[in-house]
Amino acid sequence: MSEEKIKRTELSELGEFALIDHLASGINLKNSSSKKGIGDDAAVIDNNDLLTLVSTDLLVEGIHFDLTYMPLKHLGYKAAVVNFSDIYAMNGIPQQLVVGIAVSNRFSVEALEELYAGIRLACEKYHVDLVGGDTTTSPSGLFLSLTIIGSAQKNEVVYRNTANENDLICVSGDLGSAYMGLLLLEREKAVFNANPEMQPDLDGYDYLLERQLKPEARKDIVELFKTHKLIPTAMIDISDGLASEILHICVSSNKGCALYEDKIPVDISTVTLCDDFNIDPTTAALNGGEDYELLFTVSQKDYEIIKEFQEVSIIGHITEKNAGTNLITRSGQSAPLTAQGWDSFRK
Amino acid sequence: MSEEKIKRTELSELGEFALIDHLASGINLKNSSSKKGIGDDAAVIDNNDLLTLVSTDLLVEGIHFDLTYMPLKHLGYKAAVVNFSDIYAMNGIPQQLVVGIAVSNRFSVEALEELYAGIRLACEKYHVDLVGGDTTTSPSGLFLSLTIIGSAQKNEVVYRNTANENDLICVSGDLGSAYMGLLLLEREKAVFNANPEMQPDLDGYDYLLERQLKPEARKDIVELFKTHKLIPTAMIDISDGLASEILHICVSSNKGCALYEDKIPVDISTVTLCDDFNIDPTTAALNGGEDYELLFTVSQKDYEIIKEFQEVSIIGHITEKNAGTNLITRSGQSAPLTAQGWDSFRK
Repeated sequence: MSEEKIKRTELSELGEFALIDHLASGINLKNSSSKKGIGDDAAVIDNNDLLTLVSTDLLVEGIHFDLTYMPLKHLGYKAAVVNFSDIYAMNGIPQQLVVGIAVSNRFSVEALEELYAGIRLACEKYHVDLVGGDTTTSPSGLFLSLTIIGSAQKNEVVYRNTANENDLICVSGDLGSAYMGLLLLEREKAVFNANPEMQPDLDGYDYLLERQLKPEARKDIVELFKTHKLIPTAMIDISDGLASEILHICVSSNKGCALYEDKIPVDISTVTLCDDFNIDPTTAALNGGEDYELLFTVSQKDYEIIKEFQEVSIIGHITEKNAGTNLITRSGQSAPLTAQGWDSFRK
Repeated sequence: MSEEKIKRTELSELGEFALIDHLASGINLKNSSSKKGIGDDAAVIDNNDLLTLVSTDLLVEGIHFDLTYMPLKHLGYKAAVVNFSDIYAMNGIPQQLVVGIAVSNRFSVEALEELYAGIRLACEKYHVDLVGGDTTTSPSGLFLSLTIIGSAQKNEVVYRNTANENDLICVSGDLGSAYMGLLLLEREKAVFNANPEMQPDLDGYDYLLERQLKPEARKDIVELFKTHKLIPTAMIDISDGLASEILHICVSSNKGCALYEDKIPVDISTVTLCDDFNIDPTTAALNGGEDYELLFTVSQKDYEIIKEFQEVSIIGHITEKNAGTNLITRSGQSAPLTAQGWDSFRK
């Protein structure tokens, strides 16, 4: 025993996704009601025709949010909405929310009220019930743990590993704006730190700030699916950037893809600010993250339906696996997609 | 605006339960599937005959556990079991577990493996599936968030607010032992800190240490209920000490109680160590906490069944509200019960 050196692998060597895979390896589901475990936007529990969906998020001050520019009410709203988004990404309806909060005594009751006001506002808007929680002390900082429970009809739930060759790849809204909102806030924070007399220069960027500070989940798109009786073949929400998410779909579906750079929806204010920051807007869209838009695939036969969706862009198609996962650039070049999504262990 | 001073209420002024009540006040459940929200061991979601139960716990290093004497594997096991206990306390069966972990880079992948090994061992033993989670970075320390999902037949779920006058008050196992195990570990830690050459003196206290470091949830008692077709009238698990928990039952049921000091089950090793520490064993049982035994009430008509349960003690009865919540001491005196349960905000 004493001759063996205890092995120490740094968390950063694995990264978040590999770590979860590693820790969860070899887990076999035993209960007949456990339909889907680790590896999608939400776990799926079978209650006969109605499936229960469960997803959880842990948010850490200084890692996932910065209270210098994120008001507590916005933080609560965003934390809740981001969680709802995971249920919409399964084509389900979020219904019950459970919230765990650990805070240091640097926070007052009034501060927690603000945080809760944001959570409650989101619950109200999305028709979700706050049904439970745990509130406790932390030695330092604020930790938020949210678990959302939703439901979906058995024949309507959409996983990420079920994309088929030739399916159209679609995305709602526009991409990269939340990331540019973050860069803007960080720039103004740096300016403020250098000279507290300076007033922040955020004019004209309301949209980008709102995308970062008060994002919405695409309830409307899931409702459109129901109205049009359209069921995507695969779906995921974009939290880590388009590149990372389409790779999740392709790898888990054992497929490839072709994404067209000129089809990727980017808002004009994102382009303008990218110019300021000397960032390629496509890079912001591919790797920025926190868009909380829905990325999904539909069968070609549904083209006539999906092309009428105002807020949805068709950005490519699924290919066979051997064709690889590629971005077709504006100049017609094909370049392999690589995920540079956000990984808290490597930050 | 500027004349008003912003009000600041310290978290410690409210305490944990009052804070939760305060933050959750005025929440109305909107979804028909939300049967029970904040205020019991678990939230209850209606799926026709089968109810889904959800409970969550947030555990913070330095507040809820001390890694100097709590091995990571034990921590994982305990965190999971404590969560399962909340579902048993609703007379349900825990089935799916979701785990959020935030760790600083002081922890290695191997350390997380140990933690997960404990969680997985508990899941195996209690036949629970680990179905999801979130693993992320923390600036310092270890934060664990566990959410357990269970199920119960609609006619079998047991709440805490449904105790009736004259019901018998029952408790499984023995009380105060986990608390004395904690005091023992803290004493040995202090000795070790004073002189690292000292060997810990834990001999003869295996039971108390196991109660603190590797508690079990009372799955067996819930199974006995099913075997004997006995449904308690109210139930809660003992995490904060007998006094705090019986007060939860009485206040929410709008009743009083009479507990008999001489009926409270205390293990002989708890009594011995209490003697060492000059602590009244009844105080350890009433206020120690972390026993994870089930405290429940049954109708008098079920006396013949419950008296045959080897591991259950009848410790008193429910009274009308105006009679108050009292402990009848060994000397026959009646003394009002007060909750001095553990509150992380006042620690």
